[in-house]
Parts: sequence; structure tokens; C-alpha cells
Amino acid sequence: MSPMLAGDQKLDSVPMQEPPRHFADDLVARLRQLGHPLCVGFDPFLERLPPLFRRGSMQPSDPQTAAAVEAFFDAVLDRLEGRVAVVKPQIAFFEALGSGGIAVLERLSAKARGLGLCVLLDAKRGDIGSTAEGYARAYLAPGAPLEVDAITLNPYLGIETLAPFVQKAQDHGRGLFVLTRTSNPGSADFQDRLLGTSETPLFEAVAASLAADAAALCGSQTGWSSLGVVVGATQPESAQRVREALPNSLFLVPGYGSQGAGARESLRGFRPGPAGLEGGIVNSSRAILYPDAAFTKETKAWEAAFDTALDRAITELGEAVAAG
Amino acid sequence: MSPMLAGDQKLDSVPMQEPPRHFADDLVARLRQLGHPLCVGFDPFLERLPPLFRRGSMQPSDPQTAAAVEAFFDAVLDRLEGRVAVVKPQIAFFEALGSGGIAVLERLSAKARGLGLCVLLDAKRGDIGSTAEGYARAYLAPGAPLEVDAITLNPYLGIETLAPFVQKAQDHGRGLFVLTRTSNPGSADFQDRLLGTSETPLFEAVAASLAADAAALCGSQTGWSSLGVVVGATQPESAQRVREALPNSLFLVPGYGSQGAGARESLRGFRPGPAGLEGGIVNSSRAILYPDAAFTKETKAWEAAFDTALDRAITELGEAVAAG
Repeated sequence: MSPMLAGDQKLDSVPMQEPPRHFADDLVARLRQLGHPLCVGFDPFLERLPPLFRRGSMQPSDPQTAAAVEAFFDAVLDRLEGRVAVVKPQIAFFEALGSGGIAVLERLSAKARGLGLCVLLDAKRGDIGSTAEGYARAYLAPGAPLEVDAITLNPYLGIETLAPFVQKAQDHGRGLFVLTRTSNPGSADFQDRLLGTSETPLFEAVAASLAADAAALCGSQTGWSSLGVVVGATQPESAQRVREALPNSLFLVPGYGSQGAGARESLRGFRPGPAGLEGGIVNSSRAILYPDAAFTKETKAWEAAFDTALDRAITELGEAVAAG
Repeated sequence: MSPMLAGDQKLDSVPMQEPPRHFADDLVARLRQLGHPLCVGFDPFLERLPPLFRRGSMQPSDPQTAAAVEAFFDAVLDRLEGRVAVVKPQIAFFEALGSGGIAVLERLSAKARGLGLCVLLDAKRGDIGSTAEGYARAYLAPGAPLEVDAITLNPYLGIETLAPFVQKAQDHGRGLFVLTRTSNPGSADFQDRLLGTSETPLFEAVAASLAADAAALCGSQTGWSSLGVVVGATQPESAQRVREALPNSLFLVPGYGSQGAGARESLRGFRPGPAGLEGGIVNSSRAILYPDAAFTKETKAWEAAFDTALDRAITELGEAVAAG
């Protein structure tokens, strides 16, 4: 990958009148305004959808199910506007609803971006050559049917396979979050294996391999890079090792809330900035989308329950950010 | 993962009158009949689609593009019926066409299965917990909108993350192909890294970790397992090492044809069976879908060009199988 070449191409392909966007600069500026790094995950668990939004059998094969999911996240987006910087749809759950589910995700992503929310697609894609190009085009090309601002990627097939995504990040101001150390118990199977006679586990080698691209994608405003990484909040030491390898990469931290990590733990690897700790986003899905009190048929009661869960996460993370 | 438990659940959930399907038994029986292991990859490269099928601008955002792709693979399926056992759609290229592309893939998969072709979805999915469940349900559950017979998986997140797919393979006779050593140049970045002080590269550790599940998914007719692996044809020594770790796993071998590996090389890791060498499927996409002679507007000329390319691959692989 040649950052110089990519930079030249960018100058050619972006119209002069349009200010060049930078994913990390834009996101970090917004996070500083808001004072918290909360990212709300969109995981449509059909059996947990509040009764207010349920329709038909709620089976994946029922066409009404996709409509119910759309109505729910449509209402969620209205409540998130101006409160959070970023939402993270988990595409697996939309894929489970077939092409109708993907159509819903297309409309929700467009609405979210229209509301000024950054859309980070949790797709964990990874493939070779022309197929990687296909995925990069599918999600990061301007005008793509399911255009988003950033995507999660799986590095198992090698650093070269990330190149089409890095190119799109350069050309169109997109963001990437590459899996390093995930938060699930089995992540140790391979990610923690020490390489050769070194003390370097695989996840750290992955992080180190990203350093050149990450440096090339640093923003001029904040210094943060549009090539970020996924680092499980349940792994504090891992976070420190990844941070050393990638000083300017934003972290996507899953595992806050229902997966058991607290707010302060989730900020390991963050560092002091002008508005408190910064350096990533912290995801919560279930604790915000499906609190017990939101299991209601009453609009006002649902709104109140949703806002309470959202406020709790925002306050908790905001306090941890401010405490430094 | 408990194979005993999975077995009990299967007895409960499958109606007694329906003979239980087994992916590997069914596929290997069909491969023996046909005398070759060719799998035809469905990679819709928009710029290479024969003029006979092109419509509109052929840009991803043009609604006519999905229709063109559908018309092309519809005609391809008609020519493949009875000639090959399995087709492998690469979902990335359908995702690049948005929900309309996924709808096309749903219809093509249903048609292929109706014609008696096995559909192996090349999706390389891998995620944790409930998300892995979501992917397994999306593609391997009976009645799913995009129901297929088998899927490719990425192991980076750990063996535990494969469990929902193994369960679906048990319950519904599906097949799995887990990435071990891929055929791209950058695959060495991580897959070839030696672990600890051993001589074991990562891809071999991945293979070894699959052994218990692979053994539990062996078929009673052929002895082959429904838990297969992806092993690049450009890596003959890797094929041997994976075969030693997984004696009964079917190989999905990419890289035959346009990626440079010959027929005999593609069969490394296969072994003698009742109808010649067996033990996997060998994929070819571009060499069959887009030979120069198929770039025509004439139906008869396209059919002849397609058949010629298909026959060449079948003959070449059939001879290598028979030569043993």
C-alpha cells in the first residue's frame, strides 16, 4: 500500500469545492462536543423487541418481521438524534431477515446519516482480491445502496486484503475497525497464541501490522487515525498492548454493559484530550435497546424506559471520560 | 460442543418419516457419480458480464444491473444442471448490489437447489455469541430467506464461535468450510506464523482445533465429514498438513484455473476412493464464467463458449481424479 499514491489519487478524485472529510477527525470532534464515547449497537433480537413494535408472528420468514424491526429502530433513531455520535448496526441480524432485512438496513442507515449520526456497520468482513474490492464497494463507496461511514473487518486473510478498504477510507473519508482482541471467551484460541519465540501474541502482531496504514490515515485536526481497531473491554492488558502498537488508532470497544465490563474499564487505552479521555467509542446494545422497563405497549412508557437506559449509559461513560 | 447432545436434539426435531440428510455423504455420492470435483463459483464481475446479458449502465446503483446478473446466472444454472454437483456464490458481489442483489441471490439459490445443485455460500462469516447464531440462522436454518446447503466461515474469533454453525450442520444436514490456509499472497501474514516454540503454523493449529467437531460430523455412508476446510490450491504442503490434522474433512480448494494452480495440484490432500481421488471440491469461477469467447451477444455462441470452458475444466479435473 502506498500512502503517497493514495494521497495523489484523492486530490484528483475529490472535487475542489467539497472540503475533504476525515472520518476520525469528524468523529472525535463530535465525541468531544457530546462528552461521551457511547456507540449504540443495533442488534435486532426478535424475541426482545418491545410489544409496542411487534407485528405478526415475529418469525424471520414472516414479511411483517422486517417491518417491525424497521419501526423499532426508526423510533430508536429519533431518540438518539443529538444524543450520541455513532450507531453500530450488526448486519447479521438483518441478513437473517433476507433481502427484506437488508432493505430495512439500507433505509435505517440513510435515515441515521441524515440525522447526523455516524453509521458503523458491524460486518467483520474479510476476503481476498476482487472479493475484498466487492465488499469495500458495497459499503464504503459513495452512492452504494447500503452506504455507511465505517465498517468492521477481519484480518485473518492478511494485511494485503485490507488494502481496498484503506483506499476507500483515503478517498472518501471512511473509517475502518479491524478485529484484534475480541471480548468473547474463545478469542484466546488463536488471538492470544504467542508467535515464534517472542512474547508477541497474534492479536499484537495484527495490531503492529496495521501501523503503517494507521499512520497514513491520521487526521490533521485531531491526530487520530481513521484506521481503528476492535479491542474487547474485558481485556484491559490487551488494550494497553494494542495502544502501544497503534498510538493513534481509535478503539471500538464492545463488551460494555451486558458483557460485563464497566465504564472505566472500557476506557483503557484512551488518553487525555481537550474534553477528557478520548481515543475510541464504547458500544452498548442490549442494555439500551432492551431494558425490562421497555417491554411495554405504551408509547410514552417505552420512550421513558429507553431514555432512562440511554441516559444511564451516557452519564456513566461521561463521568468516566471526565474523571480521566 | 457436545455431539451427544446435538444428536439427541436431532432425534427430537427431525420428523421420523424424513430420512436424515448428511451434507458430506450426499455431496460425495454425487461427486462419485459425476467423476469430477468441480465447483463453479458465482462471482458477478459487472464489467465482464457477456453482452448477451448486459442491461442499462451496469453500474451497481442501476436497478437493471441486478436483473442482468440474475439473467446471466439463471442461464448459467440451466447449463450446469446435471453437469456439476455444487455452485459457490460469492455473496460480496451480491451485497454490492444492495438488497436487490440479495433478492437475486435468494432466487438463484432456490433455483439451484431445485435443480439438484448443492449451494455453498462463500460468505466467510465469523462473529461471537448471538451474532454467530444470527448468521447460522440466516443461511443454514430450514426456510430461511437465503437458505443454502453450506457456508464458508472465518475462525479468527475462536472455535467456540463456530458452535451455532456446527449445531445447524448436525440438525439440518448442512456443510461448513472453515478457512485455514488461503490462496492469496498475504495469507502468510498470520496464517503461516509459527506458534510458540513449535513447528506449528497458525493455520495448522486452526485445523487441529476443528478435529473433534469434524469427527462428530462424519457421515455413515462415506466417512467424510460435513465440517470441511478451505485450503488454497497454491499451497501443496499446507494441504498435506491440514489433511493430517483432519483426515475426514472435505477440502474446498480455491485457486484452480485463473489463480494459477493446475488440476493435479488442486487434488493434493485428496485420497483414493471408489471412483478415483476424492475428498473435496475444486472451485473455478472466472475461467468458466468469463472466457473471451463468451463475450458475445449471440445466444448460441455464448452457450457454446460457456460449454467449452465448462467441459475443459470437467475433463481436466476428471482426468486428474481418475489418474489417482
